Amino acid sequence: MTDARNYDALPMDWVGDYSGKKALLTPNIEAIFDPHTGARYTYKQIDERANRVATYLVDKLGISKGDRVGLISRNRMECIDLFFACGKIGAILSPLSYRLQKPELRDLMQRETLKTLFIEDVFATLVDDSVLPEQRPTVIQFGDGDNAAAYDAILATEPRDVKVPVAMNDPFLYIHTGGTTAVPKVCIISHRQMMWNAFEALLMCAGSGHSRELVLFPLFHVGGWNVFFCLFMRNSLAIPLRQFDAGQILDMVDQKVINRLGVVEAMLQMLVAHPKFEKTDFSGIELITTAAAPCSNETLQPFWDRGISTNQAYGLTEAGPSNFAFLAREPGLEHVKANSRKVGTPFFCCDYKIVSEEDHNTPLPPGKIGVLCLRSYHNFDGYLNDPERTAKILDQDGWIYSGDLAVCDEEGLVSIVGRADNMFITGGENVSPEEIENALRSHPAVAAAICAGIPDKKWGEIPVAMVVLTPGKYATEADLRTHCKELLASYKVPKTVAIADAIPLTPVGKLDRKALKAYFTNKQAA
Amino acid sequence: MTDARNYDALPMDWVGDYSGKKALLTPNIEAIFDPHTGARYTYKQIDERANRVATYLVDKLGISKGDRVGLISRNRMECIDLFFACGKIGAILSPLSYRLQKPELRDLMQRETLKTLFIEDVFATLVDDSVLPEQRPTVIQFGDGDNAAAYDAILATEPRDVKVPVAMNDPFLYIHTGGTTAVPKVCIISHRQMMWNAFEALLMCAGSGHSRELVLFPLFHVGGWNVFFCLFMRNSLAIPLRQFDAGQILDMVDQKVINRLGVVEAMLQMLVAHPKFEKTDFSGIELITTAAAPCSNETLQPFWDRGISTNQAYGLTEAGPSNFAFLAREPGLEHVKANSRKVGTPFFCCDYKIVSEEDHNTPLPPGKIGVLCLRSYHNFDGYLNDPERTAKILDQDGWIYSGDLAVCDEEGLVSIVGRADNMFITGGENVSPEEIENALRSHPAVAAAICAGIPDKKWGEIPVAMVVLTPGKYATEADLRTHCKELLASYKVPKTVAIADAIPLTPVGKLDRKALKAYFTNKQAA
Repeated sequence: MTDARNYDALPMDWVGDYSGKKALLTPNIEAIFDPHTGARYTYKQIDERANRVATYLVDKLGISKGDRVGLISRNRMECIDLFFACGKIGAILSPLSYRLQKPELRDLMQRETLKTLFIEDVFATLVDDSVLPEQRPTVIQFGDGDNAAAYDAILATEPRDVKVPVAMNDPFLYIHTGGTTAVPKVCIISHRQMMWNAFEALLMCAGSGHSRELVLFPLFHVGGWNVFFCLFMRNSLAIPLRQFDAGQILDMVDQKVINRLGVVEAMLQMLVAHPKFEKTDFSGIELITTAAAPCSNETLQPFWDRGISTNQAYGLTEAGPSNFAFLAREPGLEHVKANSRKVGTPFFCCDYKIVSEEDHNTPLPPGKIGVLCLRSYHNFDGYLNDPERTAKILDQDGWIYSGDLAVCDEEGLVSIVGRADNMFITGGENVSPEEIENALRSHPAVAAAICAGIPDKKWGEIPVAMVVLTPGKYATEADLRTHCKELLASYKVPKTVAIADAIPLTPVGKLDRKALKAYFTNKQAA
Repeated sequence: MTDARNYDALPMDWVGDYSGKKALLTPNIEAIFDPHTGARYTYKQIDERANRVATYLVDKLGISKGDRVGLISRNRMECIDLFFACGKIGAILSPLSYRLQKPELRDLMQRETLKTLFIEDVFATLVDDSVLPEQRPTVIQFGDGDNAAAYDAILATEPRDVKVPVAMNDPFLYIHTGGTTAVPKVCIISHRQMMWNAFEALLMCAGSGHSRELVLFPLFHVGGWNVFFCLFMRNSLAIPLRQFDAGQILDMVDQKVINRLGVVEAMLQMLVAHPKFEKTDFSGIELITTAAAPCSNETLQPFWDRGISTNQAYGLTEAGPSNFAFLAREPGLEHVKANSRKVGTPFFCCDYKIVSEEDHNTPLPPGKIGVLCLRSYHNFDGYLNDPERTAKILDQDGWIYSGDLAVCDEEGLVSIVGRADNMFITGGENVSPEEIENALRSHPAVAAAICAGIPDKKWGEIPVAMVVLTPGKYATEADLRTHCKELLASYKVPKTVAIADAIPLTPVGKLDRKALKAYFTNKQAA
C-alpha cells in the first residue's frame, strides 16, 4: 500500500554538503569568528575553504568515500575546514586527543587505518616513528607563523566539484571514548546522528533567536562538534577557542561577544577564581549550560548572584551527543535554583526509560532509581570492529544502555544520580554512592567526599564514606551523619565517615572507590 | 562494520506524540490562539485535549493503529485535537474538502475505508445516505452553540495512556489532490514527511525568533497542516482562521496580533481591495510569503510601498509540502523586488535537479528550462492503492517528478515558469506558455493573458496568445509583440495576439489552453 523506503540508506546530494547548502541558502551570514586571528567567516567563505580542502584531499591525497582522515589539533579553523571537506566527499574524520599517550595513539591509528593525518605543529612531537602504524598515513602539519605555508598552499587549491552523494547512515566521524579501564572504544558517528542532534538543538532552542557561543569543548570529543554544528545549523555565531583561558573568556563576556555559555563545572570555578571575574559585566549572558557531570549549587551561586539563568544538559557519545536539558517552565531564578540538580526532559525526538539492572524491559515508575536507557535517530552506529561491546550497549529495539543511574520526578524531570557500575545494594535497596557524596558535599564544612559500599553480614553491603574538610571549618563524624539523615533515607546514611586530608583518586583524578573499599575492608578486618 | 539500521521502520514512543513532547518540554508556552472564541491554548492544554480525544477514539469508537478518521471542517480547534489524537494512537487522519461534490466525497470515503467521520455542523447536509459508503463510518457532528454539546462530552472523557509506538514511515495523513482532470489522488503522508518538513522550516527560519501567524490555508490541504505544524514545532503562535476574511485579517495586522503572513496571490488582492487597507498599520509585519503559484509584482507593489519584505515559496504535496523559498541575501527591498519572481533555493535537506522531458537522469545547466525533480526525506509515500500513478511520479532513486517547469540562474536561484504538460516545442526549443503569459501581463495595458502552441508546418508549433486589456488602457497587437520582443527570445514571441473581452477558462477557473488552441486552429483552417 505504501511506498515507504529506507531513506537513511539512500545517498543524497545534500547529505554531507552542509557548508555548501548554507552557502546557497544564506551565503552572507557570519557563522564563525576566530578570536585568535580576528578573522570572521561567512557561510560562503567557509564553503569556499571546504571546497578547496576537499579538492586537495581527493586530487592530491587520493582520499575517497569511506577513507579515514586523522586530525590532532586544538580547536582551529583547519579542523572545521576538514569537517566540511570530509562531509562533501564522504570521508571519515577521526579527531584524536592530543592528551593521549604514544601507545594509545599508535593503537588508535592502527585500528582506524588512517589514510592521512593532519597535525597541528605544537603536537608534532607526539607523532614519531614509534607512533605511526606500518601502513603509513600521509602526515600534514599546519600551524601559525612559519608553519602556515603548507596549509596556505592547500587553501590555494583550485576547487572543483568533488562532492559525492552520501547517505545519512554513512559514517562521518570516528570518536574515541573511555580508556581508563580498557582499550579506548571508537564510536562510529553517522551523518544521521549529527543531523538529528542538530534538529534536536533547533527544537530545544526554537524561538530563542540568534546566539553567539564559544566552542570550548575540544573537537576530539563529539561534544565539541555538536556545539559547533548546532550553532552552524542555527545561523548562529560559533567562536572556536584553542584552549580554555579564563581571562580571555571573561573579556568576551564583558564585551558581549558571546550571549550564551556552555561549560563544565571546573571551567566555571576557574572563571570565578580569576581576578577579572569581579569586574566582568555579565549582563549580556542569557544562559549558562553545564554538561558532562552534574554541577553543584556552590559553583553556580556566584552566577546566580549576578542574575544569570543556568541549566544542565546530559548526553553520551553513543546516544546523543546531547539527550537531555532542563528548560525553565516558569520565569525567575528561584525556579532555576530549585531544579538545578536536574537534567530536565529528554529532547523532542528522544525516547528514554529508567530500568532496573536485572530487567531492562520494564520501565520503573517516577521516584525509583535505575539505569537510564535512550533511543533515537541520534544513536551511534556501534563501536568500530567491536560487535561484542556494541551489543552490550545497543539492543535490537534500538535502546542504548547508558550505565548512568537516573530518577524521574512526578513532573517528568530527570536527575542523574550516579553510575550503575558504582551502585551497591544494602538491605535489598539499590544505593548510588554519588547520591550520598552529594549529600555530604552539601554540608558547609565539607570540601570533598567519597562513598562506597563494603560487605556487611547483616545488610549485604553498607555505605561508608570519607571526607576532606574545608580549611578553617570544622565538623565531627556525628555532625556529618546527622546532616545526611536530614537529606537521605536512613539506609543511605554512611555507617562510618572518615575525616581525612585527602580522598583517594585514580591517576586521572577520578574518585577511587575501590581504594576506599579496600581501606575500610582492611580496617574492619583489623 | 557498522550497526546502522532502518530507524524509519522502528516504532518509537515520541513519534506521533507531538503534543505530549511539547507539553513535557515547554508546557506553559501559548501555541494556539483561536480568534473566533478568543481562547488561547498552552502546549499542556493542547495535549490535555488531545489525550481526551485520543482516549475517546480508542475506547468509544474502537479506533486503533492504522484506522482512518475522516474530517470535514473549516480550520477549527477540533481539527487540531484530532491531528494530535490520531498521532498518539497511530491512526490516519483524512481531512476531506468541503468543496467536493457528493459523488467525489462518496468515492473518497469508499477508497479510504473511513472508520469514523467527524463533520462540522455547517457541512452536515454534504453527508447524506447517498454519500456514505456501504461500510458506514460512525459520524460525529461538532459545532458552535447548540451543537457544541456532543464534542464537549468527548472533551470530558477521562484520559488514559492510549499512546502507542509509531514509526516515522507509518502513515499520518491522507490528503487528496487534483481532481479536475481525473479521479482525485490520495497522497499518503507519513510521520516522516511531516517531521522533516518541520525540520526544514526550523532550518529556514533559524535565528528568526518567535512568530505569530495565521493558519489560513484550509486543513484539507497539506499546506494548512504544514503551516500549523511548523509553527507548533517552533514554539510560535498559530492562529487558525475558519475562512478568509480580509477585514478580520487587516484588524489583526493593525493590532500586531500577527507578525508574518503566508498567503496566495488572490488573498493579497482581496486585502488591498478592502476599505480598511489604506488605514491598516503594517509596521508589525516582517515578511509576507506567497505560495501555490508565482505572485505578480503588481499584486506585491502595494505591500512594497509600505516597506514590507516579501518572498515566494514553492512545494508540492507529493514532495514537500514545502521545498523552496527565497531567502534574501542582502538587506533592502530592492533586492527583494529584483528577485520577486524566484522561488529561491531548495530547503536544506532537499535535493533537486532540472531535467528535460526526454532524459530524466541528466541535469540541465543553469539557464535551461526543464522539469523540476525533488528528492528528500519529506517525499510522500505514494498514492493510496495506485502503484501505477505512484511509479509515474516517484522513481527508484527517490526522485519526484514535479511536472513543473523551472529554470535556475547562475546564482543558484530557481524560478518556476510553468507546467510541463503545457509546454510546446517550436523550432526544437522547449517553450512554456506561462513564461509568455507573464511577459504579456507585465505590459501596463494587459489585465489577463493566455498562451498556447498551435501546429505549424515550418516550426512544428508556434506560440499564439490572447489578452484582455485593462479598462481605460489601450494597446495594439504590434505594441504587445514589441513588448514581448524586449523580454523574450524571438521564438517565444507570439505570432498572433488576439485582443478579447474575456480569456477562455475551465469550469474551475483555470486557464483553458485547449480552448485557445481550438480557437486559433479553427481560425487557421478557416
